[in-house]
Amino acid sequence: MRNVILVTDFGAGPYTGQMQLRIKELLPAIDCIDLISDLPPFRPDLAAYLLPALTRDIASGNLYLCIVDPGVGSERAPLAVWADGDWFVGPDNGILSQVVTRAASVQILNPQWCPKWSSDSFHGRDVFAPIAARIINAEPVDARPCDAEALVGSDWSDDLAQVVYTDRYGNLLTGIRADRVSRNQRILAGGRRLPFARTFCEVPQGAGFWYENAFGLVELAVNQGRADQVLHLAPGDRVEIDLLE
Amino acid sequence: MRNVILVTDFGAGPYTGQMQLRIKELLPAIDCIDLISDLPPFRPDLAAYLLPALTRDIASGNLYLCIVDPGVGSERAPLAVWADGDWFVGPDNGILSQVVTRAASVQILNPQWCPKWSSDSFHGRDVFAPIAARIINAEPVDARPCDAEALVGSDWSDDLAQVVYTDRYGNLLTGIRADRVSRNQRILAGGRRLPFARTFCEVPQGAGFWYENAFGLVELAVNQGRADQVLHLAPGDRVEIDLLE
Amino acid sequence: MRNVILVTDFGAGPYTGQMQLRIKELLPAIDCIDLISDLPPFRPDLAAYLLPALTRDIASGNLYLCIVDPGVGSERAPLAVWADGDWFVGPDNGILSQVVTRAASVQILNPQWCPKWSSDSFHGRDVFAPIAARIINAEPVDARPCDAEALVGSDWSDDLAQVVYTDRYGNLLTGIRADRVSRNQRILAGGRRLPFARTFCEVPQGAGFWYENAFGLVELAVNQGRADQVLHLAPGDRVEIDLLE
Repeated sequence: MRNVILVTDFGAGPYTGQMQLRIKELLPAIDCIDLISDLPPFRPDLAAYLLPALTRDIASGNLYLCIVDPGVGSERAPLAVWADGDWFVGPDNGILSQVVTRAASVQILNPQWCPKWSSDSFHGRDVFAPIAARIINAEPVDARPCDAEALVGSDWSDDLAQVVYTDRYGNLLTGIRADRVSRNQRILAGGRRLPFARTFCEVPQGAGFWYENAFGLVELAVNQGRADQVLHLAPGDRVEIDLLE
Repeated sequence: MRNVILVTDFGAGPYTGQMQLRIKELLPAIDCIDLISDLPPFRPDLAAYLLPALTRDIASGNLYLCIVDPGVGSERAPLAVWADGDWFVGPDNGILSQVVTRAASVQILNPQWCPKWSSDSFHGRDVFAPIAARIINAEPVDARPCDAEALVGSDWSDDLAQVVYTDRYGNLLTGIRADRVSRNQRILAGGRRLPFARTFCEVPQGAGFWYENAFGLVELAVNQGRADQVLHLAPGDRVEIDLLE
Repeated sequence: MRNVILVTDFGAGPYTGQMQLRIKELLPAIDCIDLISDLPPFRPDLAAYLLPALTRDIASGNLYLCIVDPGVGSERAPLAVWADGDWFVGPDNGILSQVVTRAASVQILNPQWCPKWSSDSFHGRDVFAPIAARIINAEPVDARPCDAEALVGSDWSDDLAQVVYTDRYGNLLTGIRADRVSRNQRILAGGRRLPFARTFCEVPQGAGFWYENAFGLVELAVNQGRADQVLHLAPGDRVEIDLLE
């Protein structure tokens, strides 16, 4: 494996730092890189549609540790998914569902191994990081194969017509892949009909539009403005593809 | 030493980046990891009780650079503390007090060495990082031994019945070790009496409770809510252990 | 090169993580360090005056990737600047202007090479990171030499009497070098006349003052208060040097 890559809702505080230290202890020769730690809190349903977009242009050969886990402490199972050259480790709560659905080649494992001690609330550090380390070290995790149809989220829609993330500029990333929408179609969002534009420079100052972002998703933006404030939208809010071209 | 680990109130801005670059320059073979940079600003009294909890489950052999330093520029002394297999370097303003108090084996040094030049306001980069580098390189820091009783904070209480940190989910970490409280006792906080629960799943939606967090501290939470907003509490605010069981 | 150092307005989200992964892929033997990712969004004019201050005390031999790029997608050119032992790569929108102006020894290149594919909106990852990698690997970037006078920002003032950054403590960094101001002069800001003080400890609680910060800039602060809130100032707001001593 090249790297362990963190994809979490942990924020800038101590949880990310503790993950990095635990992974360094378990895997001294592997680099641990924080890809994103400000996913919308407690929303694996939104993270599911951001994850394959975020990883699309990263060279394969990594292990993604994907922890958005509102059910920590309950009985949701851990998953280890091998998909098109990467490993993905995280809870079976839907976060890995779209990685599985979209993979050309996929293997889904349900590790039965668990460490002797774990806190009740920080399974990212105490359960998922050790599972990741065992997988990278080719140590057994007592894994049972698992059908894709049995996973939480296996019946979710192919794309998600919701805001999945707001970035620092106020741009609104949706769960809709841009190649599923015609450039002639508008996105209905926040009471407006937003046309397509290739870049910010193509629309007047203050105008809203949608474009294909660098991850391949439909993103809503306002030239020289904050789309989140202009459209009054936040993660989880719905948008709509206008059927008229 | 395995790593230099940063524990600061510096935030996401340039101070953490400059620390990492300075440490890399001084110690090219040592990794520098940011454990936490969003400690409550200017509150070494709160950081003191979070520090031993945060480091409890990290394998020993590290040097912790602990900088919450409202008195930078005044005459507070630098400290270098060896405690149970780790080094801790920081100002003598109480931030290291509970590490010292709780250590089974401790040595406290007061380095007289200081670099030729230092800014007046960024001793983390200009004074404490060079002291840390000299300690790791086994270079003399002209250290005088120092009695634990002489340190700022040596007379502080064993546990701190205050909020010491609010995390990204709105959970409130206190300075009370969870093994000092009976599971039958309630925590009085924000006008409520919060019972113990093992995890979020054990209480109804919207209910407040306390639990033992992954660092061994009493943490106040609300199932599917933000405890900071529900209880109207912030770092420094007091809580109380209910004496009735 | 020692390191690739990121200087951006990308925030804590996925853009910084994707930059780090791309650079690691292109330059496996080089460390990538995030110096600052919370520059004021879309303001290369402010970043221009913070950049030489931030890099002043970092040992030379690095490549700084400087991306504050509101014009991404338009026709602004990429620049590669060698200045006093460091490389700086970024868009020709003024962000590198003060590095160029202040350098004792400078070479300015205008790379014509560009990668086969690039997103329209994330040139940091898709254009500037690959240019940086080619420079570090001594691969040709089809560079045309470029006159300093032709750069955006070449006619900007030597110092900038504006707030360029607000730090986590609410302190206001200006674009004025502190050695250009007499210690007897006051700074007019937010309707107040702020005197010089060497450190926080020299003024009464709640008093505003200016001091020379650890980067050599005039910084406005309030002892035990937040200058941004007391003075009602934010990045881009003007300040003034009082001509009376």
